[in-house]
Amino acid sequence: MSGVQRLLVVGAHAADFVWRAGGVIALVTANGGEAIVLALSYGERGESGELWKEPGQTVERVKAIRHEQAERAAHLLGARFVSFDLGDYPLEVDREATERLAQLIRDFRPDAIVTHTPTDPFNPDHPVANQAVQRARLLSSGAGVASAFETIEPPPLYYFEPHQPELCGFVPNVFVDITPVFEKKVAAMQVMASQQYLQHYYAELAERRANHARRISGAKDIRYAEAFQRVTPLVVRALLGHG
Amino acid sequence: MSGVQRLLVVGAHAADFVWRAGGVIALVTANGGEAIVLALSYGERGESGELWKEPGQTVERVKAIRHEQAERAAHLLGARFVSFDLGDYPLEVDREATERLAQLIRDFRPDAIVTHTPTDPFNPDHPVANQAVQRARLLSSGAGVASAFETIEPPPLYYFEPHQPELCGFVPNVFVDITPVFEKKVAAMQVMASQQYLQHYYAELAERRANHARRISGAKDIRYAEAFQRVTPLVVRALLGHG
Amino acid sequence: MSGVQRLLVVGAHAADFVWRAGGVIALVTANGGEAIVLALSYGERGESGELWKEPGQTVERVKAIRHEQAERAAHLLGARFVSFDLGDYPLEVDREATERLAQLIRDFRPDAIVTHTPTDPFNPDHPVANQAVQRARLLSSGAGVASAFETIEPPPLYYFEPHQPELCGFVPNVFVDITPVFEKKVAAMQVMASQQYLQHYYAELAERRANHARRISGAKDIRYAEAFQRVTPLVVRALLGHG
Amino acid sequence: MSGVQRLLVVGAHAADFVWRAGGVIALVTANGGEAIVLALSYGERGESGELWKEPGQTVERVKAIRHEQAERAAHLLGARFVSFDLGDYPLEVDREATERLAQLIRDFRPDAIVTHTPTDPFNPDHPVANQAVQRARLLSSGAGVASAFETIEPPPLYYFEPHQPELCGFVPNVFVDITPVFEKKVAAMQVMASQQYLQHYYAELAERRANHARRISGAKDIRYAEAFQRVTPLVVRALLGHG
Amino acid sequence: MSGVQRLLVVGAHAADFVWRAGGVIALVTANGGEAIVLALSYGERGESGELWKEPGQTVERVKAIRHEQAERAAHLLGARFVSFDLGDYPLEVDREATERLAQLIRDFRPDAIVTHTPTDPFNPDHPVANQAVQRARLLSSGAGVASAFETIEPPPLYYFEPHQPELCGFVPNVFVDITPVFEKKVAAMQVMASQQYLQHYYAELAERRANHARRISGAKDIRYAEAFQRVTPLVVRALLGHG
Amino acid sequence: MSGVQRLLVVGAHAADFVWRAGGVIALVTANGGEAIVLALSYGERGESGELWKEPGQTVERVKAIRHEQAERAAHLLGARFVSFDLGDYPLEVDREATERLAQLIRDFRPDAIVTHTPTDPFNPDHPVANQAVQRARLLSSGAGVASAFETIEPPPLYYFEPHQPELCGFVPNVFVDITPVFEKKVAAMQVMASQQYLQHYYAELAERRANHARRISGAKDIRYAEAFQRVTPLVVRALLGHG
Repeated sequence: MSGVQRLLVVGAHAADFVWRAGGVIALVTANGGEAIVLALSYGERGESGELWKEPGQTVERVKAIRHEQAERAAHLLGARFVSFDLGDYPLEVDREATERLAQLIRDFRPDAIVTHTPTDPFNPDHPVANQAVQRARLLSSGAGVASAFETIEPPPLYYFEPHQPELCGFVPNVFVDITPVFEKKVAAMQVMASQQYLQHYYAELAERRANHARRISGAKDIRYAEAFQRVTPLVVRALLGHG
Repeated sequence: MSGVQRLLVVGAHAADFVWRAGGVIALVTANGGEAIVLALSYGERGESGELWKEPGQTVERVKAIRHEQAERAAHLLGARFVSFDLGDYPLEVDREATERLAQLIRDFRPDAIVTHTPTDPFNPDHPVANQAVQRARLLSSGAGVASAFETIEPPPLYYFEPHQPELCGFVPNVFVDITPVFEKKVAAMQVMASQQYLQHYYAELAERRANHARRISGAKDIRYAEAFQRVTPLVVRALLGHG
Repeated sequence: MSGVQRLLVVGAHAADFVWRAGGVIALVTANGGEAIVLALSYGERGESGELWKEPGQTVERVKAIRHEQAERAAHLLGARFVSFDLGDYPLEVDREATERLAQLIRDFRPDAIVTHTPTDPFNPDHPVANQAVQRARLLSSGAGVASAFETIEPPPLYYFEPHQPELCGFVPNVFVDITPVFEKKVAAMQVMASQQYLQHYYAELAERRANHARRISGAKDIRYAEAFQRVTPLVVRALLGHG
Repeated sequence: MSGVQRLLVVGAHAADFVWRAGGVIALVTANGGEAIVLALSYGERGESGELWKEPGQTVERVKAIRHEQAERAAHLLGARFVSFDLGDYPLEVDREATERLAQLIRDFRPDAIVTHTPTDPFNPDHPVANQAVQRARLLSSGAGVASAFETIEPPPLYYFEPHQPELCGFVPNVFVDITPVFEKKVAAMQVMASQQYLQHYYAELAERRANHARRISGAKDIRYAEAFQRVTPLVVRALLGHG
Repeated sequence: MSGVQRLLVVGAHAADFVWRAGGVIALVTANGGEAIVLALSYGERGESGELWKEPGQTVERVKAIRHEQAERAAHLLGARFVSFDLGDYPLEVDREATERLAQLIRDFRPDAIVTHTPTDPFNPDHPVANQAVQRARLLSSGAGVASAFETIEPPPLYYFEPHQPELCGFVPNVFVDITPVFEKKVAAMQVMASQQYLQHYYAELAERRANHARRISGAKDIRYAEAFQRVTPLVVRALLGHG
Repeated sequence: MSGVQRLLVVGAHAADFVWRAGGVIALVTANGGEAIVLALSYGERGESGELWKEPGQTVERVKAIRHEQAERAAHLLGARFVSFDLGDYPLEVDREATERLAQLIRDFRPDAIVTHTPTDPFNPDHPVANQAVQRARLLSSGAGVASAFETIEPPPLYYFEPHQPELCGFVPNVFVDITPVFEKKVAAMQVMASQQYLQHYYAELAERRANHARRISGAKDIRYAEAFQRVTPLVVRALLGHG
């Protein structure tokens, strides 16, 4: 069973991909694969803490800075950054934007899609992003039969780790060893200057998840890990042991 | 990520492994791996339907026939058959038997263990087997640190499919394509003459699960599949797509 | 679909059947059916509040009074009272007692069994009774095939309402109109002098559950009801509307 | 307790009722009752596999064929076919369509409504249909008191079986013996030429569910069954055994 | 840990606050605190039973009566009544109304918000109110960082008790002793003449919940209680015993 | 609402209380309260990693060292250490030991009991400890009525945080600010030399839980916290805001 070669990560806000999936993105691209990170909004109003401490700050300026930061972070991870600029707090994804997302999925044909959990009592936009991804994914792949529109094979779906996992109903069932690319994730996190306070938090989280992964598998060389919840079943040619 | 090389399947009764995991056993051994099938009892009293229709039948005779059938079926799948002969209806696994199972796990060092679901409203022995396996697995692998007894790396744990999955809380998250070895499973099922009525049922189930696996993954060449619920998280070096 | 003709109610303590299932017992017997109420213990140590306020009270005397009260209450409901006298706080049901219960089920061949919920954070004995009933029920009915022991068709299983339903995970899916026999239930409750404080509580509960039943079904003539959670699926010849 | 006399089945697409509830529809009408099958859309874009293999196919033509097929299938089952033609992939049910559905429920006064599960990770339209039915049912029956609009008694609600039940959270609690009308269901399935590949699948499913129903109830004469999840509690005059 | 000083109760309909939270409202105001009760609609069409028995009744008249009654009831409890008059059966809360609610929360800065459960199979409007409150609460408090809009500290969130708690997934984890203010709740309930039939029901419920609270805590002086489900974790300076 | 004055912490092994509840123990004793920490076993065989690296180590010597360390750690937290020395891997708590625990609870009359979660797929002994505590707690407090044995008011029950919370079903609903006593917890952790590798892990966990607590409550001065899951409902005199 080989790793993902075409990865799509969808976040409600511009920086989600860095904290929550920076490692697996870097793994895909380091292995010669391709990754797209899509931000449904820039998180310009609600998620750009330090930028809003500047006097006279404007939404347009925050969006520009966030775009530039996200693009640089994506670049450091080897990924392409795309934004739909749908607005945040609240994010809304209407029928037209859902179809646009479905088309992006059809065009890119990812081996896996990663997004937010369906529940998040700390954020109004994360569940909206989840719903949009779930719908667009089904619209892109159809019912597995010939249809009035182009369809692709249904990409596996993962949730990345939310801020307070237990309260979001997040139960990790896949731990990915990101030790070989951890430095890239650190570099990408450093770019997100507007949310600097998160860098230490997510570096420690990577150590904590590595501790868990070692305990689960016995693999003593894992120093940094990211946790995911795979939603779609695995379809395999043999039962899997540890990785 | 490579497939399991050392597989342990634990059933409450002698024939469980054939119906529920015959395919993955054959895959392991076909790929050069090793498999042990352990029956905690012979299912001599409660699970040997057709044998008990013979007048003058005795428990000892049923056990002997079941042992011989299970051994032949295991052989056809390339596996070794072991029985603990603990009695059925009700099966009880005391401290000594649990330790014996833990020692078997330590000695064999399986890459994966497969057993019953923890809940089964149709069978008094299946949950007992599950509890025993869970405890023995933890006793064999310890706390991940040096200890007073020998420990091994904790083997991943799977549940195989129960008879009425929804009512047992079974949610399949791994579908294994058993098309290449399906004929071996059929041959093994035919050996279990004491439960002949199940052969048709489980052959159809393999087609049904293949239908599901195709729908999930788009892999059109899967004709027979077995479904499992993986309980322990995957620890991997890269995010996985479809198999 | 006709109502139950042979009903078995199993309680951890002598009086459980009165409060929690007195109505359905009376309905069965009023309709010409037969009911057995089995108390695994007398609840002599933990559940006999007012009796223990008498100075010099003894366990043996409490058991005798409880036996006599339960027998009278059962009689008023038209049922037969049986006690296993296994002791309470804590109740323990060993292998021999489980088999005795399985034999009682085989002999009586009930159309339905009613007992406690599997979870009850307010009582150490209720979950033990539940486990015993679940095991004995499976041992009495076997695997649906010929076996070394006599088997009967698996009786449907219900849970009656615990004291604090939400905290016991009780979700009622069957409301039974006990209006025609409510006076019998009241009479039976009055016999349980050792737990007098519960009579008002359970009379009001019957009104409350009737209110719910009316709201669910529109049946305006239901004045008293009991709520149950049916665990085993219905197998029917036609889809059912309201009763 | 007598069977349903007025049955409403609501599907997202034109053919859902045939595969998932054809048997119970035929039972109702064979017993002198009345059934309406409502398709919220024709499934013209996403669910009409074989029709879209024809070159030059158009949505209008697919809709016409699907209408004609569904009408014939409904006729074979003794039911009336109604379509709201709301469009599929994605289906959307706005306020006006919800009120139209509520009015249909008020006018028909069904004894039971059957529809999709609220969750279906394989289909974008099934959960939308479920939500619409749940809302319309509540709007049609109100709060159980006098109100500004006409209300009816709240009809019991059932979910029919989805394609991959465990992954849709479907837990069957009602199995209906459809043996007496199975030939009618087969005939109705044969009409749905645009989804021919499903006929074998659902015929086998009927045997599998019959196997389950026999094991649950001991009723050996059940050869074909359909499984449902009843959502609203039963309100009855006596505890029910097996059917 | 001191009690709430600023309480916001949000109901779908004008009278919800009286039945479900009248006691805690009176406690807050009796302790010198401030309470706002917000009705998203008047429940004019679906929840005003007795008013609709009058011939020639109109929606406008019902709304006026409901407003006047709710205002008087609120006054008796020491609270301020606010209505958004959004319409009922079905209630819809659009983006503008959600923002209006968020602004009310920002302005009032409540120590706690109390509203409906997210699930209610008996009412189409309660879940809509829940969703609106959850979204507005998150919009008012933001991501805990500087942002483009004013934010407040996130108020703890509670659900009050629905009519049929088990079927709404309501699990009470906070019981509040309302004995000292119970007479005020009774007075407020008497004002809601349009739903007179509920007064007896909710008075008995208060006794029943007090019985539960006594059993849980041992506090024998609790005669009337209200039950709530706290959704947001407690953040405290010491572990809490009973109150 | 005041904090706990009499706290009982029960661990399967000698050191559990330090890592998982050291902060709340220190808070209780710093506030003039009393705390007992009970170890059901010393964790001598499975949990004493570094000690077993010494050549020639014996179980008796490990137990002695663990006793001495636990006693010193408890002393630093102001608590009394008690051990039942029941053995580990596997821990078994028989009827006599359960009654001994019940008597300890009756004698100490704690305001709160803290122990392991009922599920822990990484440890065979933690769920056993949970079951024992649940049973003993119920035996100590009885049914809330007069009985054959002395009873106390039922102490509230909490679970402390397990190693991999999501996989143990742990959902924290109480965060306790342990900033004022964090140095004491650090000192106590340093005493547990046999599990040195855990000190860094649990110090970081305290920071992480403080981050969560700040986000939930807005209380910016919380630097270290412990998370708990309260199982028994709160019974209070007023609705609570944040602490």
